[in-house]
Amino acid sequence: MGYRIAVVGATGNVGREMLNVLAEREFPAGEVYAIASRRSQGTEVSFGEKTLKCHDLGKFDFSKVDFCLMSAGSAVSKEWSPKIGAKGCIVIDNSSCWRYDQDVPLVVPEVNPDDAALHEGIIANPNCSTMQLVPLLMALRDSVGLERVIVDTYQSVSGTGAEAVAELEGQIRAHADGRRPEANVYPHPIGFNALPEIDVFRDDGYSKEEWKVIVESRKILHLPDLRVSCTAVRVPVFFAHSEAVHVETTEQITPDRARELFAAVPGVVVEDDPTAHRYPLATHAAGRDEVFVGRVRADASRDDGRGLAFWVVSDNLRKGAATNAVQIAELVTRRGWLAPARARAGAAS
Amino acid sequence: MGYRIAVVGATGNVGREMLNVLAEREFPAGEVYAIASRRSQGTEVSFGEKTLKCHDLGKFDFSKVDFCLMSAGSAVSKEWSPKIGAKGCIVIDNSSCWRYDQDVPLVVPEVNPDDAALHEGIIANPNCSTMQLVPLLMALRDSVGLERVIVDTYQSVSGTGAEAVAELEGQIRAHADGRRPEANVYPHPIGFNALPEIDVFRDDGYSKEEWKVIVESRKILHLPDLRVSCTAVRVPVFFAHSEAVHVETTEQITPDRARELFAAVPGVVVEDDPTAHRYPLATHAAGRDEVFVGRVRADASRDDGRGLAFWVVSDNLRKGAATNAVQIAELVTRRGWLAPARARAGAAS
Repeated sequence: MGYRIAVVGATGNVGREMLNVLAEREFPAGEVYAIASRRSQGTEVSFGEKTLKCHDLGKFDFSKVDFCLMSAGSAVSKEWSPKIGAKGCIVIDNSSCWRYDQDVPLVVPEVNPDDAALHEGIIANPNCSTMQLVPLLMALRDSVGLERVIVDTYQSVSGTGAEAVAELEGQIRAHADGRRPEANVYPHPIGFNALPEIDVFRDDGYSKEEWKVIVESRKILHLPDLRVSCTAVRVPVFFAHSEAVHVETTEQITPDRARELFAAVPGVVVEDDPTAHRYPLATHAAGRDEVFVGRVRADASRDDGRGLAFWVVSDNLRKGAATNAVQIAELVTRRGWLAPARARAGAAS
Repeated sequence: MGYRIAVVGATGNVGREMLNVLAEREFPAGEVYAIASRRSQGTEVSFGEKTLKCHDLGKFDFSKVDFCLMSAGSAVSKEWSPKIGAKGCIVIDNSSCWRYDQDVPLVVPEVNPDDAALHEGIIANPNCSTMQLVPLLMALRDSVGLERVIVDTYQSVSGTGAEAVAELEGQIRAHADGRRPEANVYPHPIGFNALPEIDVFRDDGYSKEEWKVIVESRKILHLPDLRVSCTAVRVPVFFAHSEAVHVETTEQITPDRARELFAAVPGVVVEDDPTAHRYPLATHAAGRDEVFVGRVRADASRDDGRGLAFWVVSDNLRKGAATNAVQIAELVTRRGWLAPARARAGAAS
């Protein structure tokens, strides 16, 4: 039999990758449905060796599926996730709509799996920039304690969507042909530039992307007072986000010990031999599920052994989105958390 | 009459820009000589509307010139700068060869002009990544005190040289044609990637580029104990370096006050209206002499008003190299510091 799964937003960058990951990981799926807006109805998408026709979100009966992996933006999620969840289908949502709701778990299976048990029909998938960071921060939290984190990002255009990938492709072609670049998706050309604007700006001068890294890290790590700062920057890279990270720890830690701790985290790969030009790279991480970390060193701005600097890279569409969503579904099935938490509590009492 | 100036390394990216800047700023030059290695002898370079033929470094008589603007790498500078300086010609050297020598001034005219008075024939021009940072750090040092600086860079390929610009161009063309990129200048493709390797690596895990930012900032700012950390990253941008900066100050400071202080520094332009998509950008800064700063905000990892985050962009070939070198020459002539410091002291006593 297997589980019945609906992928909402199946024609988008992340939706397509969700279908790829479900097929690759051999998730025990009985039926898989591709769902999209009416506009994309009839569009065909790949699921392993099969081809799926997209169903209309407005007409699909979610009572017949166990999981809805949703990557259709906050507006769609806000309207649909509660309705779908009420039909007994667990929504694993990739938008930012529910992440900050205290009743909705925000889960990275390697970091806070038990939070998933508390779901009432919706589980939120973290932002890509947060996702690749928290497994490493967890390792430090559990060994030497975390005081403060500064992270500056080098984010790929695929995080914006297929239209942004096409825009960078167009600007590359324009450059090769000696034409002026056209910019529609981003406010300035992304080709051969670094744009310090991702998502909208808040009154405090931070972009919402930067704020997500701050707030989501605290929630996932269960460190509500963790001091975090971030500058989020879009660079002309197609796939995978890179991050320069500077951490202050409560107790002393050496780079060697940090590498040991990082290597012990499931899904993390240490690539760290800079003199041999070996360190994480966006072009190497693209298409992979792991979080790659390297350039681990004692932070030069601390002389007391309580600072670390490192470089983290991961594919924003894979571990940063689709893979983590599928891992959440795997976690829920493995632990028997399909029913909402209150229903399970009622059944147990 | 005017001053007689030799530009050594005149066929390189920075050397050509030095000639451009000398012409544009109407430096009172009587004679300008383009000097290069024997290999480039006879090559023609532009100086304003004129064309100059390159002279052979090995045969040129430096006793007939007042200034030698040198951008020919550390090995050439190590051999030639002392010889040229001994002939009564002031060497303004763009390599890292003399920057850390305690007898050689390392000068940014807006920041530490008086240090230039101490020269004994050689004045060092700082590294591009340091150059654009220190005018802003100076403003904070002088108003609220500086405790700690973390800077992560987004550096353009022109900093590596003309061959790196050609390599990125080649990789763009390869991408447009569906061919595999070739990488010779960098250890990995720079096209559509972020490389956390600039210059060689030290035993402590920092790259020499990162170490330069740390050590040069301390020397220029006269803060030998300033705590600084840096991750230096090459991105697929042609001209201008961008930097994400996080600063801890001794006293409290608001973003508004920081913007006022920054705007008052000569050569600094505040571009800071992010909701209108206005912030410093590499493509806007290219070809300009100013240091552009924006995204100024209270650093979210400090809750005591003693942290600032901002984004700094400047053209690495202009203010980051050529313009600063010419400004040093202007400073020396304006203040009458042409003779070496000891000679001036002898004449005065």
